[in-house]
Amino acid sequence: MTTTKKKLVIDTDPGIDDAMAIFVALRSPEVELLGLTTIFGNVYTTLATRNALHLLEAVGRTDIPVAEGSHVTIKQVVILFDFAVHGTKKATKLRIASFVHGSDGLGNQNFPPPTGKPLDQSAAAFLVKQANLYPGQVTVVALGPLTNLALAIELDPSFPKKIGQIVILGGAYSVNGNVNPAAEANIFGDPDAADIVFTSGADILAVGINITHQVVLSDADREKLEQSDSKYARYLSKILGLYYDYHKDAYFIKGVYLHDPATLIAAVDPSLMTYTEGVVRVQTDGITKGLTVFDTTKKRYGEITAWTGKPTVKVAVTVDAPAVVEMIMQRLTTDD
Amino acid sequence: MTTTKKKLVIDTDPGIDDAMAIFVALRSPEVELLGLTTIFGNVYTTLATRNALHLLEAVGRTDIPVAEGSHVTIKQVVILFDFAVHGTKKATKLRIASFVHGSDGLGNQNFPPPTGKPLDQSAAAFLVKQANLYPGQVTVVALGPLTNLALAIELDPSFPKKIGQIVILGGAYSVNGNVNPAAEANIFGDPDAADIVFTSGADILAVGINITHQVVLSDADREKLEQSDSKYARYLSKILGLYYDYHKDAYFIKGVYLHDPATLIAAVDPSLMTYTEGVVRVQTDGITKGLTVFDTTKKRYGEITAWTGKPTVKVAVTVDAPAVVEMIMQRLTTDD
Repeated sequence: MTTTKKKLVIDTDPGIDDAMAIFVALRSPEVELLGLTTIFGNVYTTLATRNALHLLEAVGRTDIPVAEGSHVTIKQVVILFDFAVHGTKKATKLRIASFVHGSDGLGNQNFPPPTGKPLDQSAAAFLVKQANLYPGQVTVVALGPLTNLALAIELDPSFPKKIGQIVILGGAYSVNGNVNPAAEANIFGDPDAADIVFTSGADILAVGINITHQVVLSDADREKLEQSDSKYARYLSKILGLYYDYHKDAYFIKGVYLHDPATLIAAVDPSLMTYTEGVVRVQTDGITKGLTVFDTTKKRYGEITAWTGKPTVKVAVTVDAPAVVEMIMQRLTTDD
Repeated sequence: MTTTKKKLVIDTDPGIDDAMAIFVALRSPEVELLGLTTIFGNVYTTLATRNALHLLEAVGRTDIPVAEGSHVTIKQVVILFDFAVHGTKKATKLRIASFVHGSDGLGNQNFPPPTGKPLDQSAAAFLVKQANLYPGQVTVVALGPLTNLALAIELDPSFPKKIGQIVILGGAYSVNGNVNPAAEANIFGDPDAADIVFTSGADILAVGINITHQVVLSDADREKLEQSDSKYARYLSKILGLYYDYHKDAYFIKGVYLHDPATLIAAVDPSLMTYTEGVVRVQTDGITKGLTVFDTTKKRYGEITAWTGKPTVKVAVTVDAPAVVEMIMQRLTTDD
């Protein structure tokens, strides 16, 4: 069976629901987890790396390598390069969702620092290396801003063709965003990187918040987690409180959205969603910065548009939410 | 009954479906048409004025005044002012949909020039005057880019409170645009003006192409128009050919979208649509220039957004399309 396992890299900014997604991946017999790469988003990159190492140590999986990703957006990478060369610099301000996940990214639990260290290799270099080692066989599950993937494409222009698939938690398709009415958080975090990735020609499957807002962990599910003896459930039960509080306050719901675990499941079992195909472009500035516009290609436009001739991607349009939640719960409430 | 008639001004860029909307208004006993104001869009403003005068003459309604509107976008108005004052000028390029409506805007029928003339008053001044004459009683049906309305607001900051309602054909809500995947033509034509109008605090009802793409004049309806003896139907039968050809080519449908007449009906009988209320902002540049983003206000955002605290507008969400088409057909196939 080992030879048929899906080789995954999770690009992640842990993050409470990132922790759930990583644990689901570790508990999925269909998956061979090649490594974690880290990115800013729910926390700064330094903390994302620390949390990735910590999560793997917490469940005894230090065999999985962690590669640290970019600390800044791709635009800022260019600005910092200019600084190094020309001595000019503009201030940057990343959007970090500490009010959703806690200032430590994991529900303000003050976990001890990890003992392990990340690889010497950058996330982008790690991604390129895996794509070259296993051409066409590696799936990247991207759960944060897409900076590392855009840098991988800049590092190796053949990366989009060598990578198997990129499953992206990103975008708000025909619905309001979650940072503001226009933009979803991961795309908003680095819209330039997102536009590079979406138009790169890679095999891309995007899961937007129109999908993940249907995949809700209810209070009853939370109780089941709390009653479970699995090490995964025990860990998650400790960190979920803050995430529940945020959802109650921001969305007026009892329950939490399973953004990251649902996207992981899309990579593990694509049959639980349906998809449409078309071109996605990202607005990179202005009041709708980070907005994803999907062209259904149902109209033949009279003029050349920014979407014309760009590679298509798959975008999830429906989800069997109960089945996704059940699969997540089943994997988290049992031990290896 | 006269006292209960709704006072309308139609802001228009005729335009084949503009012609239909104007005729439906003239045939609506619920309506007192105070005048037409003209704007670029389907044609340049000069031709829009000519066509507005021509259409009124074609059906013997030269009692209705026409006020000519802006020849350029509101941004360009500022640039031209700068030119006058400072001698600097940037080139402008309006998007004119002559490939939809013909180079004459009326199906390439080479109608004779009108004998009448527009008022000496600008469209913006005319709109302000009507709002002051009949405070709270005038409905503007805006069928083109919103430049004249934005100029009316700049001319008289109390205009949004004095005008009764502004019914706008504009925007693409949760669907692709018709200029490109992001933008609907009227908003794209002057996105800065649209953002001014949408956030002005006026009582606004927006009808987007998500609605008007459901209101289709079928081949059977077209035949009924051709068989009718009414002067309105006879005129429209002459100009519809090109509009049918465009829809077949661009949308692969047999039939035409009744954008302008459907919006006119929304002003005449609002009960044929349902509405939701929230804040609409317009992206004014970049690849999604002209995109309308409606905030459903279902989420409490953690940060201040460009939508926060702005006045709400009503946006149509469903339409009784058969009833709208029937009302339009009934009015156009009968004479006064």
